[in-house]
Parts: sequence; structure tokens; C-alpha cells
Amino acid sequence: MAAAPTIGEYLLDKLYAAGVAHVFGVPGDYVLKFYDQIVKSPIQHVGTTREDTAAFAADGYARCRGLGALAVTYGVGALNVVNAVAGAHAESSPVVVISGAPGVREQREDPLIHHRFGPFTFQREIFDRITCATAVLDDPPIAFRQIDRVLAAAQHHRRPVYLELPRDVVDVAGYPMPGEAPVASSSDPAALDEAVLETVSLLESSKAPALIAGVEIHRSGLQDTLVQLVDHLRLPIAATLSGKSVIGERHPAYLGVYEGAMGPQAARERIEAADLLLLLGVALNDVDLGVYTAQLDPKHMVRASQGEVMIRHHRYPRVRLRDFVPLLIKKCGPQGRSRPAGIPGPTAAGFPKTGEPMQIGRLIGRLNEGLTPDMVVVCDVGDCLFAAVELRVHERTEFLASAFYTTMGFGMPAALGAAVARPDRRPLVLVGDGAFQMTGTELSTLARIGSNAIVIVFNNKGYSTERFILDGPFNDIAPWRFHAIGKLFGDIAGYEAATEDAFEDAWRRALATRDRPSLIEVHLSPSDPSPAMKRLAQNLREKVEG
Amino acid sequence: MAAAPTIGEYLLDKLYAAGVAHVFGVPGDYVLKFYDQIVKSPIQHVGTTREDTAAFAADGYARCRGLGALAVTYGVGALNVVNAVAGAHAESSPVVVISGAPGVREQREDPLIHHRFGPFTFQREIFDRITCATAVLDDPPIAFRQIDRVLAAAQHHRRPVYLELPRDVVDVAGYPMPGEAPVASSSDPAALDEAVLETVSLLESSKAPALIAGVEIHRSGLQDTLVQLVDHLRLPIAATLSGKSVIGERHPAYLGVYEGAMGPQAARERIEAADLLLLLGVALNDVDLGVYTAQLDPKHMVRASQGEVMIRHHRYPRVRLRDFVPLLIKKCGPQGRSRPAGIPGPTAAGFPKTGEPMQIGRLIGRLNEGLTPDMVVVCDVGDCLFAAVELRVHERTEFLASAFYTTMGFGMPAALGAAVARPDRRPLVLVGDGAFQMTGTELSTLARIGSNAIVIVFNNKGYSTERFILDGPFNDIAPWRFHAIGKLFGDIAGYEAATEDAFEDAWRRALATRDRPSLIEVHLSPSDPSPAMKRLAQNLREKVEG
Repeated sequence: MAAAPTIGEYLLDKLYAAGVAHVFGVPGDYVLKFYDQIVKSPIQHVGTTREDTAAFAADGYARCRGLGALAVTYGVGALNVVNAVAGAHAESSPVVVISGAPGVREQREDPLIHHRFGPFTFQREIFDRITCATAVLDDPPIAFRQIDRVLAAAQHHRRPVYLELPRDVVDVAGYPMPGEAPVASSSDPAALDEAVLETVSLLESSKAPALIAGVEIHRSGLQDTLVQLVDHLRLPIAATLSGKSVIGERHPAYLGVYEGAMGPQAARERIEAADLLLLLGVALNDVDLGVYTAQLDPKHMVRASQGEVMIRHHRYPRVRLRDFVPLLIKKCGPQGRSRPAGIPGPTAAGFPKTGEPMQIGRLIGRLNEGLTPDMVVVCDVGDCLFAAVELRVHERTEFLASAFYTTMGFGMPAALGAAVARPDRRPLVLVGDGAFQMTGTELSTLARIGSNAIVIVFNNKGYSTERFILDGPFNDIAPWRFHAIGKLFGDIAGYEAATEDAFEDAWRRALATRDRPSLIEVHLSPSDPSPAMKRLAQNLREKVEG
Repeated sequence: MAAAPTIGEYLLDKLYAAGVAHVFGVPGDYVLKFYDQIVKSPIQHVGTTREDTAAFAADGYARCRGLGALAVTYGVGALNVVNAVAGAHAESSPVVVISGAPGVREQREDPLIHHRFGPFTFQREIFDRITCATAVLDDPPIAFRQIDRVLAAAQHHRRPVYLELPRDVVDVAGYPMPGEAPVASSSDPAALDEAVLETVSLLESSKAPALIAGVEIHRSGLQDTLVQLVDHLRLPIAATLSGKSVIGERHPAYLGVYEGAMGPQAARERIEAADLLLLLGVALNDVDLGVYTAQLDPKHMVRASQGEVMIRHHRYPRVRLRDFVPLLIKKCGPQGRSRPAGIPGPTAAGFPKTGEPMQIGRLIGRLNEGLTPDMVVVCDVGDCLFAAVELRVHERTEFLASAFYTTMGFGMPAALGAAVARPDRRPLVLVGDGAFQMTGTELSTLARIGSNAIVIVFNNKGYSTERFILDGPFNDIAPWRFHAIGKLFGDIAGYEAATEDAFEDAWRRALATRDRPSLIEVHLSPSDPSPAMKRLAQNLREKVEG
């Protein structure tokens, strides 16, 4: 019989078996011994410039591969990832946070040791509020079981989890235990049947049904099933902003993003005119509802999400999305309707017009024509996100954004995560000037790993979303020469584009550059917001002004 | 009778009255209305590139002016400052965290709104663990009283506090209330007398007494009193690393920093040979004790800190440092001892030697000669901190560092805080290459405000402290061309120094540049650690290896 692995080795084995081939993070003395175990494992360490960017990278990685992980030191490392992990929690992205800690023996005398900020229990108590499961591995005989339980929770709930690893436990042998980790919840079969039958009957009597798909489709791994449903039922389909790219956006029945008054008008009309609306995996949050400008009538709605189905005003508890959708396909006969027509994304006619200043709408139109099938679009928060509503990516899961939690600075590090997770894909990063100042340093990591990422900086000179809500000098930021970034960060091709012809030239050169990242700084007027932002800002302004 | 101010205005008035003339932070929609009130107040807003750097800047500001403040938005803003605020808590720096929040009316329906990550109570619960007082200002009639109580706690405990400001409360009028805010603790007069008398008697029978001063001297505002004590009792004095610069380091009786085997040998010998050791405001943490290499015999010790006095093995509770030190001066008669001789800091003889590669010891020696009386040294974590033990600043409170919590990335943003707090001072920033990658973006803010800061980047190519504990590829970082930073960040003079003559030239140019920041990238060999780091790493390695 082989010797039991150490607790650190066991954790690495389990992560690797779950598809985690990379761990992000910054080393520190309380986690160094675990780092040494990473080096000796099949898992690769990817160093980031900061800890919070390691967490964003792990989040991007999880969105591409189903699970992501980061390893940081105690206190100064772990407390730096709180916001990024809260974001992954809010957006259902399963990230495993591994924090080193002072040794169990060291902690006994309650010493004042570096990186300590309070009682040793406090760090875990903080993570209890931003993850779905936590464990402090301070008792070797039960550590394997704790690891199993916590990793199972991440995979089942699609949320972050937290493991604290005291440094004198890392290389202690653990104890294998019998039995499976606590299992997933299941649907109530009777409620499932009844909910499906009622939905089928509504569909059969409907003249103009439509579907809105949300991000839970992705988190439940139901993308293929969704396409089957859409094709089988001949439904036109829109996505929420946070669910953008749960279906390939060149699907013939795709209408675009629905987000009330904020989204494109043509898609809105089709959705709001439907006499039956199927909402699958949609969370009714303010962003996806266009700051509550969505006009969706509950009396035409069937909504399946978060473990239940709601039809008009009654509720079927304990009906899981992953049981509901397949059964719906099975129980629905062939539909008499003709195939619905989708709505193509906007283009930029006659681009480039020589000497014409860049405008945000034309930029998105040009990108729509230029997106290649190998691209994954990673989008930061701000007007680049609102404008990107109109982008049409080729395949599914090729648009990553912090669309609900909307944390600025998500883009560059999440692109690092995507680049590592899917080396067959080319990241196209859309990021504002303010967001780039927060976490743009990860572009140096992309350069270090030789990524062919293309970064487009929407430089509209400050915090534009806020400018449209309530302006003041606090919305100005330090002017950076983003295109000169290669002078500081390493081997990055930099371009500056104030006009359409300059952009066209830079874009073509960037496409042709395959051995290093490219960055195109696009100069946009602060008074040229996307149409979506104009509408959004109007609504947010009313909220601020009460 | 004048109308009562609004809750936001009252908070700003109270901050301004407490000496806070600047608030750091990044705007966001939940805090925008408060930002508008800042603009209309006598307080200036200082925008930073990120939120955590706003908190570090407020910490640096608090160390210079007694209180600092930052204002951020809900969730994405506040959760980004958790590490920096925990650091201020660990190091007793009073920082007021003001977080915007969704309106009280908005929260009622428990909606899914952007920047939300869990129940609305969770954010405050997180800050309860890293501050000494918190309040959610969701009930206007009591808001003024809550503000009074929380600000009084920050000033009394010298720790961070947290105020959550729902956006629909900001401009609601508050209700003045009678009475003072809860008052400071006081000493037990009998215990104070007895502790002082016993100390006087020990001092009178001692042949070679010495004093170690810690950071609590600064936090209690006792620097002048300390100098009186040292002069009156003719005591040689050392400082802890976290207390470095509580006394002007050119005082004739100053020995240097004491930190066991990690500190300079000459100071160590004088301190460990003392037959009576007065420890004033010293916390017995691992860093200050040189990772427990300090050899301090309790039977020769009198220690006053954190509200009590400990003499040998008995304890006088409820004796405050700020009562103990003045009474000690009063009760001690003139001492027969001759004035003690201090120990000067090292210099760099014959600097610059043309073509001689830069070495860390010679760099510190050169800086010791070059420090001017108007400089405040702000030091990041890593070998620059260990090397800086040997620096001698001119006046007190002119050395700022995260010496106990040791959070990387403290230096650049804390220098911004110091630059704003003390425009009469010139920041000299010592920072490693790894730490600069974390928060060096604040150099662009220093450029934006026209600071004359001088930044010295100790480029030893990776995380050197960790390298000496346990090396691996994870200690490598992306190579940046730090000296080229002006190309990206704005108007900054950049220099590169591999040799002593190149450094000398850059240093002289930087000194002469008064209208913008200068950065000198010093190339150091990864195998040239400071002597302190070599000793520290040896000790930490033993801890990691268990």
C-alpha cells in the first residue's frame, strides 16, 4: 500500500483531477512550502503582479474551464483578494482560494507575528461572507475530508470556496476517509413533471414565444442543451448582459442582448412583444433589467433559475434548471412555427473613413466585422461594456465580463486567466482608461507568457460612466500614454488611434502580430458615450439624486 | 437658529475640524452624492488609481497628521481596501473609511443590484474585524451621534473606523444631540504612582540603563516628552523597526534600531548589556524582536505599553503611557551619569567609485550622507526595509513603513499621503521591484499633483526576501524598465544606475529637480542582500521548514 500523500499534495491532486492545471498567485513566507509543492506537481504556477489580479485571473480561468484556483499568503495576500472573490461569488464563478497561514504550533501562544491583523479566526470569518464553503486545515486527521467537502461545494454551487493551510500542516500526511463528499441537490420529480407539462401547454397555445437565456445556463453546463431547445422549439433567443455568449452569437435565431431600455431597440421590441417568455437561468438583477427599464409582464412568463420554476405568479420549488430544460425538449412535440429570424449585429459601413475621428459606435461595428473565430472577448466595466452589448462573438463562452458585480479592473487579469485556460484562443480585451490604471499591470504578465492578446483601450479621459451621472473634478484621472506601455512593461506592440484610418492600420498590424501582445489606445471624446450608456446614466442619475 | 447640516456635511465638518483636509478615493455611483459634497466643502479630494492605494495614502496621511480618510463606493470599492485597512489596524494608524451604499429605501426590497455580493449587512461585518468602531448611518435621527462616537474611537484608539453612508441619507438633515462623545480611558492614580516610584528606584540603582522606544510613542503624541526624558535621564536610546523615527535619528544619544540579531551589531551590544531596560510603547512582535533573536532579559525590564506597565514579572494594569512618561520625568532627580554617546549611521567612503557596481550597503551609506532635513523617507517592504534600518533621518516621524504588518505595496501610495499631508516635505521613496509592480501606479498621481518626490527602485529582479527563504521560479517577476516610467505615466524624470558614478549623477539631478517626481532604478544583484536580510532569511527559513 502506498503511503498517504501529504495534505498539500492531496489538495493539488484533487485540483488537478478537477481540471485545474494552473494556480495563480504571489508567494509569501506562510505559503512558500505549498508553492514548493506546486512546483513538484503537474500544476503550473502563474505569477501575477498583485494578489487581487490573481483572483480575477482565477475567475476568468474558472469561466473557461469550470474551476480556477489561487494561492496567497496570510493577511496581506488573502485580504487583498476580498473584492475579486466577492465578485466571483456574486457572479457564480467557482474559484478556490488557498491561503497559507502561520503554523498551528506557532498560533498557540497567540504571538504578534507579521501579517497578523487580529485574532487568527478573523480571516476565515471574512471569507465566510464571500464564499460558499470554508475550512481551516488545522487538524490533519480530517483534512482530506474537509478538502473533499469544500471542493465539492465549489463545483456544486458554482461559487468560490476558501481553504486555509497552516504552514506546519502542508507536508503532514493525511488520512484517507471512506465515502463520497456530500452530494448535489436534486429536483422533486412530481414538481418537475408538473412544471414541464404546464410550460408545454403554454408553449403550444402561444403564437409568438421567445426565450431569454442567462448566465446560469453556462454555470450549469447547459449550453448544448440550450441550442437543442432553441432549434427544436424554433424560438428566437436573446441573452442577458451577464449571460452574454451563453449561446454563440452568430446563431440564426439570436436577437442580441436584452436589457430593457438599455439594450438594442430591435431585440427589445421582439422580446417585449412575445406572448410567452421563457427565462432560463436569468437572475432579475438591476443591470440585466436595464436598471429596471425592462417591461416584462409576469403573466406571460415562465422563469427557471436558482432551483425553482416560476410560472406567472405560482412557484414550483425544487426544480433544477438542469432537469427542467432537457425534459422540456423531450416533452415538446415538433412546433408548427416557422424558424425565427435573428437580428445581426451592427457593422461600420465604409470603415475606415480617412481622417474621421474615432467614435465608439463605429469602433464596435468595425470589431463586429473583424472578430475572428479564435477570439475570446474579455471586457472590463464602463462604456466599453455598454458598447460591447452590440458585439457578436462567434462561439459560445467567448465573452467574459463582470457584468453584474461590475468591478472595474476585471478585464486585464481575467484575460490572463482566459489566455492560460485556453491557449487555442486569442484574448481581445476591451478596457477603459480608468480600469486599465487599476489592473493593467497584468499586461506585463501576458507579455511574459508570450500571449498574442489584443488590448483595446477606450481612452475617454476619465470615469465616463460617472461623468454622465454626476460630473465633477473627481471624475478626471491622470493622463497616461497607454500606447507607450511597451517601454515600461516589456515586449508589447503599442499603437495610438485617433482616426478611423489610424485604427484600421493598427488593427491589421495587431492581427498579424502573433508572438506578443498588442495594445491599441483609441482616443474617444468624453462627450461620445455609447447609446446604452446614455440611457443607463439617465436612470442612474435619477437614483443618485433620489 | 441655523438649519442643521445634512449628515454628509456634518461628517465633513467633523473631519475637517479633526485636521483632515484631504480625502482619498475613487468615485462610484453609491458615493457620488457625497463626492459632490466634498467638492463643496473645504476638504480636497485626491483621486488615486485604485481604492487600496487610497487607503494606503490615507494611512500615510494619518501617520503625518493624526487622522486620515478615504471615501469609496459600495462593494467593489470598500472590499478593495480590506488589506490596507487591516494593515492600518495592525499598525495603529487611524484611518476613517467612508463607504457609500445603496439607499435605505433601495435596500428594503432586497434587490439584486450591482456591486452587491451578499446580504447588505455583510460589508459592515467584514469591517468589524479590521477596525475599532463601525456604524451604518441608516437612521438620520441618530447619525450625528454615531459619527461623533466613531470618530472619537479612531482618535482615542488610534485605529481605523468604518462609516457606511446610504446614498439617500447623505443630504438628509441630522439632529444635533447633547453631550460629549464617550471619553478616553484614564490611568488608575495609585497604580501610576507606584509604578513610577518603583521605576525611579530601579533607575537610581542602575549603572547602565538604556531605553527602547516603540511606535506607540508616536501614536500617543509623546515625541517631545520622549526627548525630554532621554535628555533628563541621560539615557542612550534605540528604536524598534516599527517605531523607527519616533525620535530624530541625529539625536546625540541615539544608538540606531534594535531588532535582535537582525539589527546593527553595535546597537545590539549596547542594549543587551544594559542592566536596566526601559521599553516605552514597544509591542513585542516578531519583526521588532528580530524574529525572536532579541535577547532581552525580563528581570532587567520595565515595559510601558497598551495601557499597562510591566516591571520584571509583575504588572500594573490601567497605567497609560501618556501618564507614565511625564510623571517619570517629574519624579526622577538629576542623574549622576555622564551623557551617553550615540552611534552614527554608516556612510559610504569614497562614493562614487567609477564603474563600481551598485551594492545595497553602499547605497544606504550614500543616502545617509545625502538625506536633507526636508525629506520624509517612505519605505516599502522587502530588502529596502531591512537595509533602511541603517538610515538616519533628520527629524522625527520622517520614516514611514509597514514594518510590522509588512504589506508589500505600501510605499508609493503612503508617499502620496505624506506628500499631500506635508507639502513642506520631500518624499524619498524606497521600494523594491516587486512592490512597485503592485502599487507603483500612484507615482502617476504624484506626477499629477506636481510632487518633487524621489523614488529609488531597488531592482534585485524578483521577490528577494522569499528567494533567501526558499527559492523557486515563483520568485521571478516580469522584468520592467522602471526608469522608462515617464513614457507611460506622465512627467517623471527617470534614471538607471548600475554603477556608483551613474547613481551619483542621477541622485544629483534628482535633487535638483523640484517641479516633478524623479525615479532612479538601481540595479542590484539578487545575490547581494542586506546583512539584515541575510540574518532574517535564515530565521524565516527555519520557520518555513518547521
